[in-house]
Amino acid sequence: MKPVERIGVSLDKKLLLMFDELISKQGYQSRSEAIRDLIRQQLSSERLANPKAKAVAAVCVVYDHHATNLMEKLTGLQHSHILQTISSIHIHLSEHDCLEVVVMRGRVREINKVAENLISLKGVKLGRVNFVAVE
Amino acid sequence: MKPVERIGVSLDKKLLLMFDELISKQGYQSRSEAIRDLIRQQLSSERLANPKAKAVAAVCVVYDHHATNLMEKLTGLQHSHILQTISSIHIHLSEHDCLEVVVMRGRVREINKVAENLISLKGVKLGRVNFVAVE
Amino acid sequence: MKPVERIGVSLDKKLLLMFDELISKQGYQSRSEAIRDLIRQQLSSERLANPKAKAVAAVCVVYDHHATNLMEKLTGLQHSHILQTISSIHIHLSEHDCLEVVVMRGRVREINKVAENLISLKGVKLGRVNFVAVE
Amino acid sequence: MKPVERIGVSLDKKLLLMFDELISKQGYQSRSEAIRDLIRQQLSSERLANPKAKAVAAVCVVYDHHATNLMEKLTGLQHSHILQTISSIHIHLSEHDCLEVVVMRGRVREINKVAENLISLKGVKLGRVNFVAVE
Repeated sequence: MKPVERIGVSLDKKLLLMFDELISKQGYQSRSEAIRDLIRQQLSSERLANPKAKAVAAVCVVYDHHATNLMEKLTGLQHSHILQTISSIHIHLSEHDCLEVVVMRGRVREINKVAENLISLKGVKLGRVNFVAVE
Repeated sequence: MKPVERIGVSLDKKLLLMFDELISKQGYQSRSEAIRDLIRQQLSSERLANPKAKAVAAVCVVYDHHATNLMEKLTGLQHSHILQTISSIHIHLSEHDCLEVVVMRGRVREINKVAENLISLKGVKLGRVNFVAVE
Repeated sequence: MKPVERIGVSLDKKLLLMFDELISKQGYQSRSEAIRDLIRQQLSSERLANPKAKAVAAVCVVYDHHATNLMEKLTGLQHSHILQTISSIHIHLSEHDCLEVVVMRGRVREINKVAENLISLKGVKLGRVNFVAVE
Repeated sequence: MKPVERIGVSLDKKLLLMFDELISKQGYQSRSEAIRDLIRQQLSSERLANPKAKAVAAVCVVYDHHATNLMEKLTGLQHSHILQTISSIHIHLSEHDCLEVVVMRGRVREINKVAENLISLKGVKLGRVNFVAVE
């Protein structure tokens, strides 16, 4: 069991009402849980602002699987960064396009570098990086 | 005096320690104040996701004041949307470039439309919109 | 073969130099490829601003796998939205924490709703949604 | 007159059509202008990722002008950072709330620090920072 503390928070009745309405819509069972999530999100954003922070990221790339050699290059890039790449999912979007979600572990700066290399490959049409901070 | 309520929040000791460290770095005097700000920020983001929400926005545009007629066009655009435009600041950035911060009031969708018109003017080099929700 | 057009773009020598430097750092082989990526990214952001747009999303959730019944609930939620959920990866982050990347297909609004339900579950500590527009 | 270069960009007819439609909706008079804006935006984002980059920022804060001494503190904070603060606008939002847009010049890291100090003041309800990179 982790040690738990209980703190008091005072706030306007009107603000509390609007917050209760929002979190019930989002599906929260308790205010404590919703406030803990806000705090964790804030701490995570703060840490990710540091390029040296350790993170796990889901890099999404959309690419044309007809592009010559692209799949080999993508796989090659993932292997050459083997320490960072944990896993990947391949999804068939349409006749031409695939989505590959590559999960990587490393420092924010390194992951961004690898992601740029993936996204700049000829045949890759779109790319986005989604970070999650880890201690 | 607005009616105030006091609620209890339970959280891990470790999470609380990290939160206390962050908010003291940010300059907060109390946890309640920091948590209220997180809640207000969340409510504001939620509202701004609705294109019909009422908002105030600061639209920042960087432009070359040598561009023929640009200043007249910018001023014209602001006047033709007189209901939305509240005020503006003009800042001299360099020999060529100016920053104009135009504060507008209106629905998110309308402000975005006006901002697009400002940003797409020839001579305008950069533009960003910063929304604040209002009831 | 898709029909290709060639257009001319005129820009300041200085702006072109800075762009060439950036894209070579990012790994691009040609300016055309880099500009096509900028255009696709812009079109994608535009479409995703519409809550009814069709999209594929990677929803990342970090959770404590010791939380009672959480894994059953997560799996349950994914199955109850079976039309949207395509695939998921499970990654072991630490002794306590797991990362689950759930790939979903649907309208932006629906995916956001499902993501909120996942993130608000007790035991889920962090969540982020990464959208990719599809026609 | 700045020296101008003309480059060629090849792209799918379909992508070009969608781009033309988007930029005409946004109000652009020419493709070159729209592509230059995309390039400048990309360069600006790249630079702002560096905490040491020079920037100008519009910091928006919403606050309750009934909060004791808040206006003095806000003005004091702006003066104590006199090198960074260029100008500010004050807007009356409602019976209770004001919006202050403070334009600052400095390094990204310093502006963020000052903005945190403004936002964490008791009585300040919401705050957002909007950066524009400068050379």
